[in-house]
Amino acid sequence: MTATRSVLAAQATDFPRWFQDVISKAELADNGPVRGTMVVRPYGYGIWELLQEAMNRRIKATGAQNAYFPLLIPESYLQREAEHVEGFSPELAVVTHAGGKQLEEPAVIRPTSETVVGEYLAKWIQSYRDLPLLLNQWANVVRWELRPRLFLRTTEFLWQEGHTAHASAEDARAFATKILYDVYRQVMVDVLAIPVVVGRKTRRERFAGAVNTMTLEAMTGDGKALQMGTSHELGQNFARAFDIGYLSSEGRRELAWTTSWGSSTRMVGGLIMVHGDDNGLRVPPAVAPVQVVVLAVKDEAITAAHAIADELTAEGLRVTVDDRADQPFGRRAVNWELKGVPIRIEVGPRDLAANNATVVRRLRDSAKTAVNLTELTAHVVNAIEADQTHLLAEATARQTARITTVSTVDEAVDAAATGWARIPYDAVGEQGEDRLGESGITVRCLQRPDGGLPVEDNEPDLTAYVARSY
Amino acid sequence: MTATRSVLAAQATDFPRWFQDVISKAELADNGPVRGTMVVRPYGYGIWELLQEAMNRRIKATGAQNAYFPLLIPESYLQREAEHVEGFSPELAVVTHAGGKQLEEPAVIRPTSETVVGEYLAKWIQSYRDLPLLLNQWANVVRWELRPRLFLRTTEFLWQEGHTAHASAEDARAFATKILYDVYRQVMVDVLAIPVVVGRKTRRERFAGAVNTMTLEAMTGDGKALQMGTSHELGQNFARAFDIGYLSSEGRRELAWTTSWGSSTRMVGGLIMVHGDDNGLRVPPAVAPVQVVVLAVKDEAITAAHAIADELTAEGLRVTVDDRADQPFGRRAVNWELKGVPIRIEVGPRDLAANNATVVRRLRDSAKTAVNLTELTAHVVNAIEADQTHLLAEATARQTARITTVSTVDEAVDAAATGWARIPYDAVGEQGEDRLGESGITVRCLQRPDGGLPVEDNEPDLTAYVARSY
Ligand SMILES: [Zn+2]
Ligand SMILES: [Zn+2]
Repeated sequence: MTATRSVLAAQATDFPRWFQDVISKAELADNGPVRGTMVVRPYGYGIWELLQEAMNRRIKATGAQNAYFPLLIPESYLQREAEHVEGFSPELAVVTHAGGKQLEEPAVIRPTSETVVGEYLAKWIQSYRDLPLLLNQWANVVRWELRPRLFLRTTEFLWQEGHTAHASAEDARAFATKILYDVYRQVMVDVLAIPVVVGRKTRRERFAGAVNTMTLEAMTGDGKALQMGTSHELGQNFARAFDIGYLSSEGRRELAWTTSWGSSTRMVGGLIMVHGDDNGLRVPPAVAPVQVVVLAVKDEAITAAHAIADELTAEGLRVTVDDRADQPFGRRAVNWELKGVPIRIEVGPRDLAANNATVVRRLRDSAKTAVNLTELTAHVVNAIEADQTHLLAEATARQTARITTVSTVDEAVDAAATGWARIPYDAVGEQGEDRLGESGITVRCLQRPDGGLPVEDNEPDLTAYVARSY
Repeated sequence: MTATRSVLAAQATDFPRWFQDVISKAELADNGPVRGTMVVRPYGYGIWELLQEAMNRRIKATGAQNAYFPLLIPESYLQREAEHVEGFSPELAVVTHAGGKQLEEPAVIRPTSETVVGEYLAKWIQSYRDLPLLLNQWANVVRWELRPRLFLRTTEFLWQEGHTAHASAEDARAFATKILYDVYRQVMVDVLAIPVVVGRKTRRERFAGAVNTMTLEAMTGDGKALQMGTSHELGQNFARAFDIGYLSSEGRRELAWTTSWGSSTRMVGGLIMVHGDDNGLRVPPAVAPVQVVVLAVKDEAITAAHAIADELTAEGLRVTVDDRADQPFGRRAVNWELKGVPIRIEVGPRDLAANNATVVRRLRDSAKTAVNLTELTAHVVNAIEADQTHLLAEATARQTARITTVSTVDEAVDAAATGWARIPYDAVGEQGEDRLGESGITVRCLQRPDGGLPVEDNEPDLTAYVARSY
């Protein structure tokens, strides 16, 4: 399978280039015509759809309901929350003309929807009976990026953004935390097979307008960190700015407490960067648009290939037949490998003569195993399940191996050259964050000694995870 | 149930006002802050999600794959197809500034994506082996509307837009027609319970850039027409403008033939206008976010209400319990009626004493029927199925009754005051279309004598359906 190597940069040589190559050769996405935008091709979108479905189901299980808020937000809305506007102003895309005329008030394309949702929460919430109000939307947002990169940082991206209002700070915190663990971590670990370190952002890394940002960080194949999702306690900042109030059960008017939380097409970038290898993409079975490809090596095997596929499809697997027997077999095999399809079944006249098929497990060692046709379906069903688990175990082992425990900022800088550093936050502090920043390194998140979430910025004995990041 | 009447305008008095009232009182949507935009609330979005799922499944069954193209399109793209830019220019929203700077080339927010998709089809298609290429996307689009109306004509709306490329005109036509019948008509009739008249648009009503626009038209409660979806043959217009070519099996370079087709949140507007009555919305069970609501009349009935709901949920129904026994029962009942929930089950102490529950079928006559608890689940399952059918039969009967066959344009104008007119197109022609237009009436579509689709503009003996429209 050295043929693939010629089409992809090697990970060890140039990881970012390898990333771009995979996206292009596996037909996941293309650059859009407006700088920084992205065209998601069917194979990439198929992964996103399955991921979205897994996420959406878990979001609904928390009691949140989907809704849809407008793309265009009056510019003045952004200005109502001081930190929010400061954080997002440099990234806004502004509509100044529409319907052939200059607009009286320019409209911005949403970079996120706290402001417009805030306006409606204020309208819809009257009494404590209306709380908690739990909303989510699947939408596109636009943030003008200086250094765009497909899937990771695109000018337009697809995401879900949740917005909730609660009667108390405790309730808001509990819900934001539930999303973090029961929705985001579950999807990342159980569905994407990506281990994540969960923690609290430092003050400087916080979402613009939040009092607390919680994050899930994944380790990429080159030892950097990738923020996979965030959940924010917004305190009463937006409630104050948009007057989201309610009448308490005692008849007093109170301000609500709000949260917001988001996860995006960036997760697809994470999947590529965590699981990919020098031969291309490796897609976890749970989000693989094609879980099994059955290749007919020659014309004589086409009927058998379809019969095998039918049996696997009947088991609920997502199966494709590649019966382009007039095209070179080697190139077809390499292509499916590049696309990271978990199981490849090769059927040729020789296999059939022996009542066998050849099974290749992309997520393991890609060795070729002859499997008797009578056992094939059971074999594949087991392999799919085992390989989802294997992928997670592999990523977890690498993550563990590449986190170094250190005690000074200098050591952290060294360790972050090839992986992550774990360091007492007391040895870093805001000053240490400045020094790390000079080397392009950031504190990714803070954890309590037991791995739990800090509730305040200044808790003692916190552990900081420190890394370069995408 | 006269209580509802006070909150809604009567349909007969002011149908557009009734429509607005229903949207607001049933909590389907709100006006957005930027003129003409829409906030889709959870109940309205719940209908859209179910509709989307039904549509998406059928789209995929045709072999089309989902993808995602960027929101922002370079202004110059629009100008490449002359009729297209003429049709859409007045409706464009333009981003002139982004990232704190003026853009070198302004970007328009997509009003539809033929142009940007065309650019990529040209890139992706090399040979006849790549055809047909069948794509679909679920997206938001923006068209600046002079007279916006929630769900029917909003500045931003949600839709799916399909884009396909084919090797021949026949293939393109066959596919556009398949979408029309096997996807759109099926969803409208079988899922939304809305009968539609399917036909070809006249030249003046055609999509900007198409050589043929096919449409599905529904009759609203006030006898107007509503275009529910369209499928277009684009000929080689976009293939020429974007150079979508392919190498034929004989090795010659040929231009492809393309199609596009779309259906939107406007269908939710259609659902409201076709099925609603003076008491509010009536939602077809197939897209009802809540198919059954179980109302506990008093506190003592709450446990029983939940037990009933559990049993119905186990049958796969979407069920909600209203156990707000501390709030007036009448108001709760009216509210669910307003929301158009197909089946309302009322459980009070008196019902329970008789081992009964009271069933009210919103899609029939709303009479109260006592049903023994042992038979309740079967009764409801049957009712749900029968009432989906009933709704379609009712809408079909009304549509048939309100179409008048006429032979002159003057008669058509008269008939269109309260319903639709059916008239030989030979008696109308382009001149007749002008005259109809003066009375705010249009030819909605043309059919062959046998009800089939005309393949050319000038076929003889075509029947025109003529109506006022939303
Ligand atoms: Zn392995
Ligand atoms: Zn009826």
